[in-house]
Amino acid sequence: MEFKKEFTAGIIIIGNEILSGRTVDKNTSFIASWLSEKGISVEEVRAIPDKEKSIIDTVNELRKKFAYVFTTGGIGPTHDDITSEAISKVFNQKYQYHSEAYKLLEDYYKNQDFNDGRKKMAKMPENAKLIPNPKTFAAGFYVENVFVLPGVPSILQVMLPYLEKIIKTGKKIISISIDSGLRESSLADGLSKIQDKYKIVDIGSYPYFKDKPGTVLVLRSIDNKQIKSCEKEVNELIDKVKQ
Amino acid sequence: MEFKKEFTAGIIIIGNEILSGRTVDKNTSFIASWLSEKGISVEEVRAIPDKEKSIIDTVNELRKKFAYVFTTGGIGPTHDDITSEAISKVFNQKYQYHSEAYKLLEDYYKNQDFNDGRKKMAKMPENAKLIPNPKTFAAGFYVENVFVLPGVPSILQVMLPYLEKIIKTGKKIISISIDSGLRESSLADGLSKIQDKYKIVDIGSYPYFKDKPGTVLVLRSIDNKQIKSCEKEVNELIDKVKQ
Repeated sequence: MEFKKEFTAGIIIIGNEILSGRTVDKNTSFIASWLSEKGISVEEVRAIPDKEKSIIDTVNELRKKFAYVFTTGGIGPTHDDITSEAISKVFNQKYQYHSEAYKLLEDYYKNQDFNDGRKKMAKMPENAKLIPNPKTFAAGFYVENVFVLPGVPSILQVMLPYLEKIIKTGKKIISISIDSGLRESSLADGLSKIQDKYKIVDIGSYPYFKDKPGTVLVLRSIDNKQIKSCEKEVNELIDKVKQ
Repeated sequence: MEFKKEFTAGIIIIGNEILSGRTVDKNTSFIASWLSEKGISVEEVRAIPDKEKSIIDTVNELRKKFAYVFTTGGIGPTHDDITSEAISKVFNQKYQYHSEAYKLLEDYYKNQDFNDGRKKMAKMPENAKLIPNPKTFAAGFYVENVFVLPGVPSILQVMLPYLEKIIKTGKKIISISIDSGLRESSLADGLSKIQDKYKIVDIGSYPYFKDKPGTVLVLRSIDNKQIKSCEKEVNELIDKVKQ
């Protein structure tokens, strides 16, 4: 199943914590699931270090390749938070205080020290548009098709819905999971034939090992009629192999 | 902290299950932690779909950029398992049955149907060297600096140790985590000064939100003396901010 470019996205996970193995990335799964509902297909994910050149090169490559790019991480107050400045360079815009973002933080920290680190979170490319953060009030932002979000999953998750009306919506990607209870290799030949028949349905086959080996089959499509018909054939295949 | 190219690696996660949001990738964390022990730094991770061109282009790009490339996924028996054939094309080698890999599978399936799907798992680039799989006997393989592993975490994890003697070992990357219990923005100025002083230590700052906001600081270095001295200064900073 191929998606038109207008319904594609890339995700860039910025920060050493994923690359070092310390942290498992949960943001991709959340963003990709949210986008599937809107008919947008994530075509590539990259995890890169907190290095300016890596960020600039990767954003430049993916923003041309896909309709939307989401970055996570690197917009906090510390020395290793360099995403906002790098994005300014991508778009050749001044990196400066965004007055609205600054005001939000000033209000939030009114009874505490509004120090340089806190102020830094209001620095963005000069033409950035804000993505509200109802949890800790350090806003995200977007410039053209690049959406800049924080790395903390619980904050990202309350910010993403604000993009509801900004992301163009395609046909919802329907997903059906079937746990076959069978070894992947006993289904391979039959699945291949079904996949050849249903070009508009992606059939994924995911083996697992619990007490004994099994396989989850995942059907994905934007065509409700075809996916239902495909599901029927997959279930028939499973019944046949089990006999 | 910059690593020489000979101590760098890239990881390529092949398969639609990560991109669709269905599955959270756990292989990166496992591989990266294992490599850290050996002094190898993961510099980039890419998740890409089961598409031949994506696999070939990505492997070609990363195998030149880094000393080692690890791929996960796409070496099973089904129609969507196209990694081995794509890797053959990367190295311009014939994609054919590997006699030893074939024999292992034949023995394993001796009392069951050794069907085409099962046989397919023995097809590899003609000069591939095997990576043993003590769990389900479908071997992984490597060609030059590209290591091809399965996507199922429990299988990958028992296969990786076989590469112990093949991967060149640098100085172990030491990692120290300190849970400050403080907001990231109250530490930002002090941390920045410490980072400037210790160039050979990477100081990562990872905010979290449980009952209240806190920050884990992660120090990473290959220099034991410098990281200990840096740790002392970070702890002094935390004590000072808490007063």
